[in-house]
Amino acid sequence: MAGSVSVPEGFRFLGKNVGIKDGVKDFAVAVADEPCAAAAMFTTNSCCGECIPLGRDAVSDGRLQAVMVTSGIANVATGEEGRNTELEMMEKLARKLQIAPSDVLPSSTGVIGPQLPKEKILRGMEDLSDLSADDYLSFAEAIMTTDKGPKVACERVGEASILGIAKGAGMIEPNMATMLVYLFTDADVPAEELRNMLASSVAVSFNSLSVDTDTSTSDTVVVMASGRKKVDLDAFAAALKNVCVNLACQIAAGAEGAEHLLKVTVTHCRTEDEAKRIGKSIINSPLVKTAVYGADPNWGRIVMAVGKTPDVDVSLKNLQIQWCGECVFSDGQAHEDVLDDISARIKKSDTVEIEVSVGEGESAHTVYGCDLTPKYVEINGDYTS
Amino acid sequence: MAGSVSVPEGFRFLGKNVGIKDGVKDFAVAVADEPCAAAAMFTTNSCCGECIPLGRDAVSDGRLQAVMVTSGIANVATGEEGRNTELEMMEKLARKLQIAPSDVLPSSTGVIGPQLPKEKILRGMEDLSDLSADDYLSFAEAIMTTDKGPKVACERVGEASILGIAKGAGMIEPNMATMLVYLFTDADVPAEELRNMLASSVAVSFNSLSVDTDTSTSDTVVVMASGRKKVDLDAFAAALKNVCVNLACQIAAGAEGAEHLLKVTVTHCRTEDEAKRIGKSIINSPLVKTAVYGADPNWGRIVMAVGKTPDVDVSLKNLQIQWCGECVFSDGQAHEDVLDDISARIKKSDTVEIEVSVGEGESAHTVYGCDLTPKYVEINGDYTS
Repeated sequence: MAGSVSVPEGFRFLGKNVGIKDGVKDFAVAVADEPCAAAAMFTTNSCCGECIPLGRDAVSDGRLQAVMVTSGIANVATGEEGRNTELEMMEKLARKLQIAPSDVLPSSTGVIGPQLPKEKILRGMEDLSDLSADDYLSFAEAIMTTDKGPKVACERVGEASILGIAKGAGMIEPNMATMLVYLFTDADVPAEELRNMLASSVAVSFNSLSVDTDTSTSDTVVVMASGRKKVDLDAFAAALKNVCVNLACQIAAGAEGAEHLLKVTVTHCRTEDEAKRIGKSIINSPLVKTAVYGADPNWGRIVMAVGKTPDVDVSLKNLQIQWCGECVFSDGQAHEDVLDDISARIKKSDTVEIEVSVGEGESAHTVYGCDLTPKYVEINGDYTS
Repeated sequence: MAGSVSVPEGFRFLGKNVGIKDGVKDFAVAVADEPCAAAAMFTTNSCCGECIPLGRDAVSDGRLQAVMVTSGIANVATGEEGRNTELEMMEKLARKLQIAPSDVLPSSTGVIGPQLPKEKILRGMEDLSDLSADDYLSFAEAIMTTDKGPKVACERVGEASILGIAKGAGMIEPNMATMLVYLFTDADVPAEELRNMLASSVAVSFNSLSVDTDTSTSDTVVVMASGRKKVDLDAFAAALKNVCVNLACQIAAGAEGAEHLLKVTVTHCRTEDEAKRIGKSIINSPLVKTAVYGADPNWGRIVMAVGKTPDVDVSLKNLQIQWCGECVFSDGQAHEDVLDDISARIKKSDTVEIEVSVGEGESAHTVYGCDLTPKYVEINGDYTS
C-alpha cells in the first residue's frame, strides 16, 4: 500500500489491545518528542462524537504533541459520561507521557451508542512501553474497524518525509474532513501554513471521496510537524496533497464490499465546483456504481447522473464520455462497438476510470469512489454490525 | 393495489404490443372524448428525453386530449432522429383519433440510448380498435418496465372520481415530477386550479419519494379532467393528494429489489423544508436502507443521517427516534430493551415506519422510500439491463 516508507523523525508510535475488542489491537497513540505545529479538520455532522469538540479545542492553538485513538466504539451519543471518559483518558495519557493534556487530540471510531469501557482502557494505558519510532504499522492496525488492512502512504520532500495513516471503509462522504487520518512530518512548517495546505489537500482528496454518501460523526484529519527538517514549502504542499489523494484512493478501494476503485474526472466545466458536483453525482449514483460492479460500461446512466446534477445545464451535443480511456459517447452518438472490449477490461482491473467532458469551459476535477456490491448490503444489513 | 376502482367518465384506454418488446404490451393510449383541462410536471434532469419538451409544449395551453406511452426504450440521447420519430407518432395518433396533434402528450420509458423502432410502431398504431372505457388495466400494464405489477389508485369525490396510473421501480428520486404518472378525472376543474393542486400534491408524494437518489430523464406526471361532474374543489384537491401519495407508496414498495416500504416522518422542525431535507437524508442513507433490510432498528445510523443533513443544527438532547411506533432514543439515551422486539416486527411486516422528533419547532413532513437489498444490486449490475 505505502510504497517504501520513510518514517519522519521525532515521533513514537504504539498500537495495542486494551479490551474494547476481543484480542485485536484497539488503542493507538502517536507522540512527538516536543510539541508540534499542527492543524486539523473535523466532520460537519451536527450530531458529532464527544472527541470532536475536544479535538477542536486541543488544536485551536496550532500545537499538538500526541494523538490517541480508540477503535470499536465511536463514543457518539454518549452524553456527559462519554465526554468525561474521554477527558480522563486524555489526562492519564498526558501524565504517563509527561506532556500537557491540552496537547492531546483524542479520536474514537466504531459503533455509535455504547459507552467506552473506561476502567479497562485506563488499566491498559498503564503500560505504554511499546512506544517505538519505527512501529507506525501497529498504530495503523489499531485504528482499523471494517478496514481490510492498514492504510499508509508516504512521500519524501527533500530530507523530510510525510507519513499518512488512515482508516475508513463505510459511512464515508466526508464533508470538510474524513474518517480518521493522521499525517506526521519532520518538516519545519508553521501551523498557519499547515492549516492552509491541509485545507487545499483535503479539498482534492477526502472531500472528493464518497463510498456511500453517509457522513460519519467522527471524521478527523490531523497533521503534526515536528520541525526537524527545512523544506521548500511548495514542494511540501504538493507532497502533502499526494499523500492525501493516495490515502483517499486506499479508502475507496478498500471500502465495504468494494471490488473496484472508481476514479471519475470531469473536464471542460465552467467552474471547478461544477466539475466536482457533476463528479459527485456520478460517483454517488447507485445505478453507476452497480454498472461498475456488473462490468457494464453504461453511458446512459452517466448521461442521467450528469443531467440530474442540480444547477448544472449540460448539452448532450457537447458531452463526451470515456470508460477506461475509450470514448463511448460523443457528438450525441453512442459508440456501441467498444462496449464489450471495455467490459472485459473492467473485469480484469481493480481501478475503473471514467472521464466526462462537458464541453462548456476549462475547469476540471477528479473524485474517488467505488462500486456497489451485494457484499456491501450484506455487511451493513447484518443486525449485529 | 387500487381498492375498488371507479373509472372516470369520458376516457378510453388501450394497451397493446407494437414490437418494441417481445410479446408483452409496450404501447399505451388514453384518449378523452373532448379536449380536457390539463396540467403536467416534468423531470428537472437537464439531459432529458425527447418527449419532455414535446409534452411541455402540448400542455402549455392547459389543454390535452390524449396521452401516448411507449415502453422498453426511453428515447433519450437520440437526437434529431428521436425527436422526429416522436412527432410522426403524435401525428399518426391524432389522425387516427381525429384530434389535434397539439393535444397529444407523448411519453417514453426504458433503456437510454437506442432509437425507437419507428416503422414497427407506426404499423402497430394502425389498429386502435381495442380502445375501451373500462380497460385502464391494459394501459397500466403497457407502461410497465421493471415494475412487479400495475400501479393503480382511485378516489371518489362526490359523483366524480380520480383514477391514477403509475410506473416506476428504479432511477427514482423525482425532482419536480416523477417517473410516469397519469391522473384521469371526470371532475370539472379548470386548468389553472389543476396546476396548483397538482404542484401541491406532487410536493407531498412524488417529490417526497426516493428509491435510489437517481433522477430519471423521462419523469412526467400529468392530470386530465374531462369536466363531466361538478365537485367541491377542496375535496377534489384532498382526493388528488391521496391518489398521489398512494401511488408514491406503491412505487417505493414495488421498487427494484425492495422488501420493505419505508415511511419516515420528521416532526418538530423549524420549517417543513427542514423536515423534508432531514427525511430525505434518512431515506437515502445506504446505511439506514441496509439496516431496514437487515431488520436492525439501528438508531445510531438515524442519528448520523439526521446530523449529516446540510444546514440543519440538531441537538442530541432534544432528538427522539421511534422505529415501528416504539421509542428507541430519547433524552440522549438509547432504549436497548425494545430493539429485539422491533426487529422481529420488521421481519414480519411490509412497511417500516420511522419517526424522528427534532424538538426545535412545529413543522413536519413525511417521505417515502425502501430498503436496499442484494437484489437491487443484482438487477442493476446485470450487464444487459
